[in-house]
Amino acid sequence: MMNAQLTIGSMMEHAETFFFKKEVISQTHDKLHRFTYKEIGQRTRRLMSVLQGLGVNKGDKVGTLAWNHHRHLEIYFAAPGMGAILHTINIRLSPEHIIHIINHAEDKVLFVDEDVLPLIEKISAHLQTVEAFIVMTDKPELPASKLQPLYSYENLIASGDPAHPFAQDIKENDAAGICYTSATTGKPKGVTYSHRGIVLHCYALGLADAAAISESDVAMPVVPQFHVNAWGMPFACTWFGSTQVMPGPQFTPERLATFIEAYQVTITAGVPTIWLALAKELSRGNYDTSSLRAVLCGGSAAPLGLIKTFEEHFGIPFFHAYGATETTPLVTFSRLKSYQRNITSEAKLEEKSRQGILVPGLRMKVVGSDGPVKWDNKEMGELLLQGPWIADSYLHDERSDAAFTEGWFHTGDVVTVDEEGTIKIVDRIKDLIKSGGEWISSVDLENALMAHESVFEASVVAIPDPQWQERPIACVVLKEGYDTDKEELIDFLRPQFAHYWLPDDILFFDEIPKTAVGKFLKRQLREQVKARYTPSK
Amino acid sequence: MMNAQLTIGSMMEHAETFFFKKEVISQTHDKLHRFTYKEIGQRTRRLMSVLQGLGVNKGDKVGTLAWNHHRHLEIYFAAPGMGAILHTINIRLSPEHIIHIINHAEDKVLFVDEDVLPLIEKISAHLQTVEAFIVMTDKPELPASKLQPLYSYENLIASGDPAHPFAQDIKENDAAGICYTSATTGKPKGVTYSHRGIVLHCYALGLADAAAISESDVAMPVVPQFHVNAWGMPFACTWFGSTQVMPGPQFTPERLATFIEAYQVTITAGVPTIWLALAKELSRGNYDTSSLRAVLCGGSAAPLGLIKTFEEHFGIPFFHAYGATETTPLVTFSRLKSYQRNITSEAKLEEKSRQGILVPGLRMKVVGSDGPVKWDNKEMGELLLQGPWIADSYLHDERSDAAFTEGWFHTGDVVTVDEEGTIKIVDRIKDLIKSGGEWISSVDLENALMAHESVFEASVVAIPDPQWQERPIACVVLKEGYDTDKEELIDFLRPQFAHYWLPDDILFFDEIPKTAVGKFLKRQLREQVKARYTPSK
Repeated sequence: MMNAQLTIGSMMEHAETFFFKKEVISQTHDKLHRFTYKEIGQRTRRLMSVLQGLGVNKGDKVGTLAWNHHRHLEIYFAAPGMGAILHTINIRLSPEHIIHIINHAEDKVLFVDEDVLPLIEKISAHLQTVEAFIVMTDKPELPASKLQPLYSYENLIASGDPAHPFAQDIKENDAAGICYTSATTGKPKGVTYSHRGIVLHCYALGLADAAAISESDVAMPVVPQFHVNAWGMPFACTWFGSTQVMPGPQFTPERLATFIEAYQVTITAGVPTIWLALAKELSRGNYDTSSLRAVLCGGSAAPLGLIKTFEEHFGIPFFHAYGATETTPLVTFSRLKSYQRNITSEAKLEEKSRQGILVPGLRMKVVGSDGPVKWDNKEMGELLLQGPWIADSYLHDERSDAAFTEGWFHTGDVVTVDEEGTIKIVDRIKDLIKSGGEWISSVDLENALMAHESVFEASVVAIPDPQWQERPIACVVLKEGYDTDKEELIDFLRPQFAHYWLPDDILFFDEIPKTAVGKFLKRQLREQVKARYTPSK
Repeated sequence: MMNAQLTIGSMMEHAETFFFKKEVISQTHDKLHRFTYKEIGQRTRRLMSVLQGLGVNKGDKVGTLAWNHHRHLEIYFAAPGMGAILHTINIRLSPEHIIHIINHAEDKVLFVDEDVLPLIEKISAHLQTVEAFIVMTDKPELPASKLQPLYSYENLIASGDPAHPFAQDIKENDAAGICYTSATTGKPKGVTYSHRGIVLHCYALGLADAAAISESDVAMPVVPQFHVNAWGMPFACTWFGSTQVMPGPQFTPERLATFIEAYQVTITAGVPTIWLALAKELSRGNYDTSSLRAVLCGGSAAPLGLIKTFEEHFGIPFFHAYGATETTPLVTFSRLKSYQRNITSEAKLEEKSRQGILVPGLRMKVVGSDGPVKWDNKEMGELLLQGPWIADSYLHDERSDAAFTEGWFHTGDVVTVDEEGTIKIVDRIKDLIKSGGEWISSVDLENALMAHESVFEASVVAIPDPQWQERPIACVVLKEGYDTDKEELIDFLRPQFAHYWLPDDILFFDEIPKTAVGKFLKRQLREQVKARYTPSK
């Protein structure tokens, strides 16, 4: 067989050749853009030629601080397409962490959205490697800024070569992208994606039994492009010729619902927080969502009630997927097997609340304290992964040794596995509550609480206990208009759990602190609980 | 990213782990077998352990002379799974060619179907490298045979280890399989498939816009397993957990139709000859074919009338695909783009008669006598291919240089390309008729003739002409009960073609000679025409 390398540039070439009429619809601050893949391809090529002119060479890092839009998509292909490395930076991180990762990755140029510019101005004195800033704006003039040198994206590419070729000397194991992931303690850790990893991951996304991304899709990933490449969807959707819809900066649930109806979106992807908000909006408004064939949910487990609302109330198919920054990210996809089609709707919901089975191309192992666990839906163990789109280390980071041992990536996620090989995320290893020699899953308690009609959000954390080592405390945000009390919620949980699982207390909050990607920030919540907590007995 | 190798063994491990309840339904001479993937996996592992005992080592060639059945499937995984090389031999080739390719490939063991045994006995004296024969039979006793040593498949694996591991030291570029393809002149040419090529090809088959093979499929490839690995379907269907149905040796159209109904087959694949025969049977019988979501057609172009019969008369979606032994084989897949959905049913049929667009992962170039052709649906050129599942040479064969030059595989197929990038096979380069400086497509004339109500099959060949260099002669088989004459057929063609395209003569045959894989054998037909032909004017 030919020694043909799997490269990101060739995915854009495929779209330019076979899907040149298809469109990318992109909402920016100022306006709605529509570009065909022919135009996106030409703009990508222009960008490669001007980046070359700015001194960006093979292996250089190209940083982005941007929302989901067409320019960000163009950098997705231009940077790796010329042999440079795309570094997407989470704009919700603390300034301290943003400084760290730009310096640690050694970004040579930074692409910055207009509304992120003030943040970068504040930290620019600390950036050690950045040689140029490029602001992405629709306005003809450059914004007043002390950043130097500062270019306008559109002015720059206007002078670029629309026929500039994708680099032909790229090897598939060359680095194509970098993304940092938050750590429990210390600075964020960098993960490097190879061309090969991203291309193979796209194949997995396109499989009929995974996301089945196709030319006929209108795809609107809501997951940010700065978070694990928006789960790889911009790459896959381009390669397979899907129409792409980008809801732009600081989108609202109303905009999401409006776009779904207006552009007949067929597939969308995001974290449970987004879907909770969208479900609220869909209930309020009168939207036609009949085009939707799939809502993909990842990042953390969706509560059963949310799945039920989408599946049964709105008639929108809802699919769990599971992954992490270290896994490009797709690892498992939840889809009923053909022989499960006739199970009860209750059993179906239960299945849908699980994270699914491994996508083809990866290997898994689930290891508890006594070695591999039984696949009995009960024994808990940490999920370990192998495969061509699984990281083998963190970028220049001594924490690599702890997470990558004997050829396996240790996810830090505790799961159970049923006979079918379907995994269910039980908890993060560090969030499991160890009480009297038993493990208590904070996630199970949270899901049970969120199934109560009055509960909007719930997060369960451990507090140290002299007798039991740790004990669970539930933190709850009630829906508007409810004044449910602790006793009612405990009574609600009682029939569902062993007595020692029941939280020692329930604290009511206006809001639960979340990470930059919408997950519960348990570290911070534990601090708040410690500060507020007065033992109730 | 991890250095994880793409290997065939890991595909079976995936099926054993996640699809262990799903079944392979296999018709042999004597009975119908049903095995789960758990059982198929154990039988495959037993086979690896006994092959090791027979002295089969890494890199050794394992030959098969067999129809489509579960044992053949097990060898598909056992040989490459232990690092050996699967060599599927076309049992319809001449004894002389079979001797040649067994010796040329250096097969160490031969797996032989019971009904093929007499053929092998006749040629065994000429086999230079074969050390053992294994007969695949359901009968408990070995057939009387002079072959030495001769083993029974079932007796052998009964003593094997059902937990024997797949080899872990395989590199993805290692050879996994060999298949020989007939040449216009001379001996068949061998193509070597790598593990990487076959795995990537499976991903392409599973894409939503290609064959979309999934767990919910019941797949019955009718294309023989000795022909380009049954187009890779046994590999992909196992990996993705589809139910597999194997119609067994010397199946009839009646058995195909019966199996489609009985097992609710969702996808099947084969050459036009098979579908012509199946269409006849479906018209005759009263079969429920509503489970079928796709009939894949390749090998040669299906006539428009056949597509129309399936799509409009039977309501069975019909898809053209294109490939060759050198291409593993999937190269293009025909599927309407989303914006073509509202075209007329006539335009839809016309689209469906084309071979489709390139599957993601490959590159193509179409080159005429003056360089790359215009994508205008008119200019003809040879299709050139690049990609990780495209061969880069023939096995130990000096004819490699002619077909593989400057990094491209020259398919020998002449195509036109439309603006959308959809190709249409016009002809084999060697079958194009060169008349008065113009090219005439024999395939276009054949398809037009086969659209006539009286014509069952038509094949057009060139005869030398002193004035025009070459002129077309049509060879026609009429349907039963028709006695259409030459003039009527020429009149039928006249409004559809330029005058110089019209065949100089139409000869009527009882049968058109075909290759071992059901394609028109034009070389032999040209000889028959020369023998019969008396110029008509």
